[in-house]
Amino acid sequence: MYRRFGGAPCALALLVCAVLLSVVAATAAQGPEAAPVSDDTAECLGCHESLHPGIVEGWKRSRHSRVSPAQGMKKPELERRISAETVPEELATVSVGCAECHMLRPDKHADTFDHNGYQVHVAVSPDDCSTCHPTEREQYADNLMAHAYGNLAYNKLYHQMIEAVAGKITVGKAGLSFSQPDQLTQDEACFSCHGTKLELKGIETRDTAMGEMDFPVIAGWPNVGVGRVNLDGSLGACSACHPRHQYSVETARKPYTCKQCHVGPDVPVYKVYSASRHGKIFSSHQDEWDFDAVPWTVGKDYGAPTCAACHISLVVNTDGEVVSERTHRMNDRLPIRLFGLIYAHAHPKEPDTSIIRNKDGRQLPTALDGTPASEFLIGPEEQAKREQAMRKVCSPCHDASWVEGFWQRLENTVETTNQHVRAATIIMEDIWDRKLLVGYPHNQGNPFDSYAERVWSDTWL
Amino acid sequence: MYRRFGGAPCALALLVCAVLLSVVAATAAQGPEAAPVSDDTAECLGCHESLHPGIVEGWKRSRHSRVSPAQGMKKPELERRISAETVPEELATVSVGCAECHMLRPDKHADTFDHNGYQVHVAVSPDDCSTCHPTEREQYADNLMAHAYGNLAYNKLYHQMIEAVAGKITVGKAGLSFSQPDQLTQDEACFSCHGTKLELKGIETRDTAMGEMDFPVIAGWPNVGVGRVNLDGSLGACSACHPRHQYSVETARKPYTCKQCHVGPDVPVYKVYSASRHGKIFSSHQDEWDFDAVPWTVGKDYGAPTCAACHISLVVNTDGEVVSERTHRMNDRLPIRLFGLIYAHAHPKEPDTSIIRNKDGRQLPTALDGTPASEFLIGPEEQAKREQAMRKVCSPCHDASWVEGFWQRLENTVETTNQHVRAATIIMEDIWDRKLLVGYPHNQGNPFDSYAERVWSDTWL
Amino acid sequence: MYRRFGGAPCALALLVCAVLLSVVAATAAQGPEAAPVSDDTAECLGCHESLHPGIVEGWKRSRHSRVSPAQGMKKPELERRISAETVPEELATVSVGCAECHMLRPDKHADTFDHNGYQVHVAVSPDDCSTCHPTEREQYADNLMAHAYGNLAYNKLYHQMIEAVAGKITVGKAGLSFSQPDQLTQDEACFSCHGTKLELKGIETRDTAMGEMDFPVIAGWPNVGVGRVNLDGSLGACSACHPRHQYSVETARKPYTCKQCHVGPDVPVYKVYSASRHGKIFSSHQDEWDFDAVPWTVGKDYGAPTCAACHISLVVNTDGEVVSERTHRMNDRLPIRLFGLIYAHAHPKEPDTSIIRNKDGRQLPTALDGTPASEFLIGPEEQAKREQAMRKVCSPCHDASWVEGFWQRLENTVETTNQHVRAATIIMEDIWDRKLLVGYPHNQGNPFDSYAERVWSDTWL
Repeated sequence: MYRRFGGAPCALALLVCAVLLSVVAATAAQGPEAAPVSDDTAECLGCHESLHPGIVEGWKRSRHSRVSPAQGMKKPELERRISAETVPEELATVSVGCAECHMLRPDKHADTFDHNGYQVHVAVSPDDCSTCHPTEREQYADNLMAHAYGNLAYNKLYHQMIEAVAGKITVGKAGLSFSQPDQLTQDEACFSCHGTKLELKGIETRDTAMGEMDFPVIAGWPNVGVGRVNLDGSLGACSACHPRHQYSVETARKPYTCKQCHVGPDVPVYKVYSASRHGKIFSSHQDEWDFDAVPWTVGKDYGAPTCAACHISLVVNTDGEVVSERTHRMNDRLPIRLFGLIYAHAHPKEPDTSIIRNKDGRQLPTALDGTPASEFLIGPEEQAKREQAMRKVCSPCHDASWVEGFWQRLENTVETTNQHVRAATIIMEDIWDRKLLVGYPHNQGNPFDSYAERVWSDTWL
Repeated sequence: MYRRFGGAPCALALLVCAVLLSVVAATAAQGPEAAPVSDDTAECLGCHESLHPGIVEGWKRSRHSRVSPAQGMKKPELERRISAETVPEELATVSVGCAECHMLRPDKHADTFDHNGYQVHVAVSPDDCSTCHPTEREQYADNLMAHAYGNLAYNKLYHQMIEAVAGKITVGKAGLSFSQPDQLTQDEACFSCHGTKLELKGIETRDTAMGEMDFPVIAGWPNVGVGRVNLDGSLGACSACHPRHQYSVETARKPYTCKQCHVGPDVPVYKVYSASRHGKIFSSHQDEWDFDAVPWTVGKDYGAPTCAACHISLVVNTDGEVVSERTHRMNDRLPIRLFGLIYAHAHPKEPDTSIIRNKDGRQLPTALDGTPASEFLIGPEEQAKREQAMRKVCSPCHDASWVEGFWQRLENTVETTNQHVRAATIIMEDIWDRKLLVGYPHNQGNPFDSYAERVWSDTWL
Repeated sequence: MYRRFGGAPCALALLVCAVLLSVVAATAAQGPEAAPVSDDTAECLGCHESLHPGIVEGWKRSRHSRVSPAQGMKKPELERRISAETVPEELATVSVGCAECHMLRPDKHADTFDHNGYQVHVAVSPDDCSTCHPTEREQYADNLMAHAYGNLAYNKLYHQMIEAVAGKITVGKAGLSFSQPDQLTQDEACFSCHGTKLELKGIETRDTAMGEMDFPVIAGWPNVGVGRVNLDGSLGACSACHPRHQYSVETARKPYTCKQCHVGPDVPVYKVYSASRHGKIFSSHQDEWDFDAVPWTVGKDYGAPTCAACHISLVVNTDGEVVSERTHRMNDRLPIRLFGLIYAHAHPKEPDTSIIRNKDGRQLPTALDGTPASEFLIGPEEQAKREQAMRKVCSPCHDASWVEGFWQRLENTVETTNQHVRAATIIMEDIWDRKLLVGYPHNQGNPFDSYAERVWSDTWL
């Protein structure tokens, strides 16, 4: 109901209530957990609190600002948000502030620079985060997404797609021709989500509010793509899903986070989710749910799954029994890869997909006739295991007949859409065979750079 | 404002406040209304609370879990959410739990099976719900949506569209040919919203946590489409708009619920709403509004209408006077059918539109030249009555000149877009006449299965 | 967490808490600020509270209903929401109600009519609002959006586009031909966002709940487009972004407001925002932010910018220092106009763009070969100034290297997309040169009325 219009103020009652509420708020925010800020971080905050309030205030709202690793490690198993059994002594009892991350492992980072006597690096990497979160880092390293840079950059066929979609266009007598887009365009387009390759270009002196200072110049910066190649050689950016300095599990559990990369054109799953039953219940009732609880209790903390609930999160039932384990290897519960490639197919065995060769020797998980590149893909046994894991996620909310019926339709839809793609590909192959266009066969041309080829590739994207 | 960073905890004040607040919360949730759970439902909960927390917790948040029919019937007329004047004695004084719905009318449901000595059915139907909500059930039976299965399945022309849009594709020497999609594809596509036809296929024995048990196997399951053909012969699924076991009026009043089916491709009204003035005010201020109040007070409970406010809900003004009556026959305030069919036209008289024949003898409300199939459509008098009813919905927020100006433009837009469709259809007819394609005329071919025909049908969809 | 199921009610504690909370609510809503309603407004409310609860309740929630101009003027500089230094005595100490706006400057408004002895006008204009908000009104007058009616209506080339997109279609032997859409269609389409031209058509007598009454008939009504031509000659509608009678800064600061006009087809920036990092953080955390605070403290009141934060709002850092000034001239921080026109280019000097002539003498800011109409566009110095202003907006959340990297990519993308548009235009010009179509050259035809021309214009829209 709206705030009422009218009514007499009562200063005393207001005061009592305000005091009580502010105490509750303060306690909720900092509580008995509050860990001290380290001396180094305190010095960072001294300047950056004024210079970068958007960063510092975000961090203040984070759990990192309130809890030390030692406090985190004391939690019961299922409530733990930290997977390390031990952390270096100097980090254990202070909150996780500026210095704890940006000064970690300074000799490993090419962008480490001297900043008021501190050895600071700009781009914090998964290998930094693994100091406290080694299990998540390890799982993520096995994740397709960690390899998203190379999976695109080291695949010759995808290069042709990049050229056709984002390339330089020249109009000549023979029609349009495409050439590779420049690096800045690639970084702004495909690699914005896939992750850029960071490279130290040198040091520059900048005029700042504190006088002249030196800073590293980094090609490919800024970027928070899922497969960013970092300056310590590690792959990925935890901030892709835990953005900015709040690093919140809440953000990562809401579908808007996945939307950033999965809204289209190649993988429009967010659109599908937002028009689904799950999506409509989420949209209507999300304000009643708890997106911060660890573990996440199905039914109690949320009433319909988000992307994270099915694919990533540690979910328990109201008896506290584990329904599904937390994983940052996001295809652990996915038997079939549905989107983004010609033909739905079994998931790749390795997260590096640039090593795959189909029977034509091309870097695709299937041939154009649909034949899977089986030696690079998981087998039926692993598929069955993953299907069971996903069905278990459905089970707290849906009885077995519901899940079975859903799964039958999914398998049928995979088969049907694969047939549709096959029909489109037969036509496309016929066009190539008649040499009306040059494309995939015999590596003779770009299979994505004409109108008919774009209609074809849109069929399966 | 954000939760404050810093501040001293005060255990006593916190305790006092926490106690007060939890008392308020508990009272708000259960309150003096709380009705007892029946013995049968208690036995269901014994197992299913652990097995299906997503279902049971949803139900616990529902009004059904807290209020008995007898309590509901005692409410003042306008506050009643139950339209029955009497309910069977065994249901009257207990909350509406598992047993009260899934064991109702066991002899009417083909899927009733023995479950630990209880006669349980899987698919609860509108005829079950009508035990307490007869008025809503009766209105909904007259609603186009209740007949959405047959309106699609029994229309030969729409079969051709299904074939062209979702059919099996074969590439032959004469080009592409389409054939009817298999049942699972149809259930996953069109009938996902329109509703499937449920059919009992037999009984299967499944291994469960409680040992081997028998369950019915139902073709077309799961489905929550608006025109589902149920196993007691009734049409519709109340859960289409009141999803899962929370059955909330709040969900149904938010536009995300309508979005699931009305986001496109055929009826993209959600997209229109979300970019409208009404939609932007809803998006910006919905968290200040009360979506659960019955009756719904315009201005006080909400500041801009959602789909439900204009088409379905019982709305009163701040004096408690009725602005518009609740109706589950959703075209009660719609003189013109705008979307989804060639030419905007007067609404059909009967909710079963498969009986309509245009002057060419085809199952369309207009001929291709726009001539309405008048004997099947409401007349000017009924149109005027419905227009008045809709204008009344606008009046608490807009003065008469605003409403009049809006309505003039709407009528002009209907005329203009009908002219555009006529222009496109003249071209299409010319193509058919010259036998460049075979389509609508003389039933000679599928009017939706070529590129030109798809451009044409996209014009009016 | 969900409201708990179960728990014992405690009437006394409930009562205490309810009293405390209602006192807080009442105080928050009306508080010590509450200003009296004027006698004139009280008489308006007497009838309209029942007749138009959607309007009156909205106003009751507005700051206008609670605060008098005199109270607003007493606030510290940065907290002021009123820019006038003095207001007419009769307005100073009462709340801003019906009469204060709808009876202001009666001799200036062509739609002023006698209403129960009061001189009332229907369409409140920016010149009315400038009584208290002169700075905002002045800035907005210099805003492109204030001139959105004329910028479209007085541009001959755009007339051709309107004709091709929304015009009447005739199918003749020579193919399709387009003619200007009627006024109602134009008002419903382009001018819905651009603003209509209001015109007094006469007075009509209407039957009302209070008996027969006279009201003005206004062509172009209703409309809340950004460049509405008002009946006092002023341009714009403040209610475009501060909708209905709540006039809230909160609404204007949320991106849904901008979405109404900027979701497409010509300027799809809302879609870009909603899939951006900023958009995902907004969507995930907006419920923790304060959209009503003046000034708006970055980091504390919001954690990621909305449209308003970068383009319009007065933003301060946590030390209370100004990061960026409030402006209603919305390109103050925009060096380049990116969307909606062929080629990204420097912003126009004047908000009236119908005066622009390119080197071909056409009303476009660039020629078809990309040459800017430089004398009508801001120069490099002004561009640099605006770029600096925008970079300053980024700085509380991003360090200098992040901003620099972002800006480099933006400039590169402008260059690249301009090259793409040039390639498409070379092809289009070739088609016109070969007289396959008639279009832009020599004013010989409509450059938007064929398929190839639509593909071309979609490239840059």
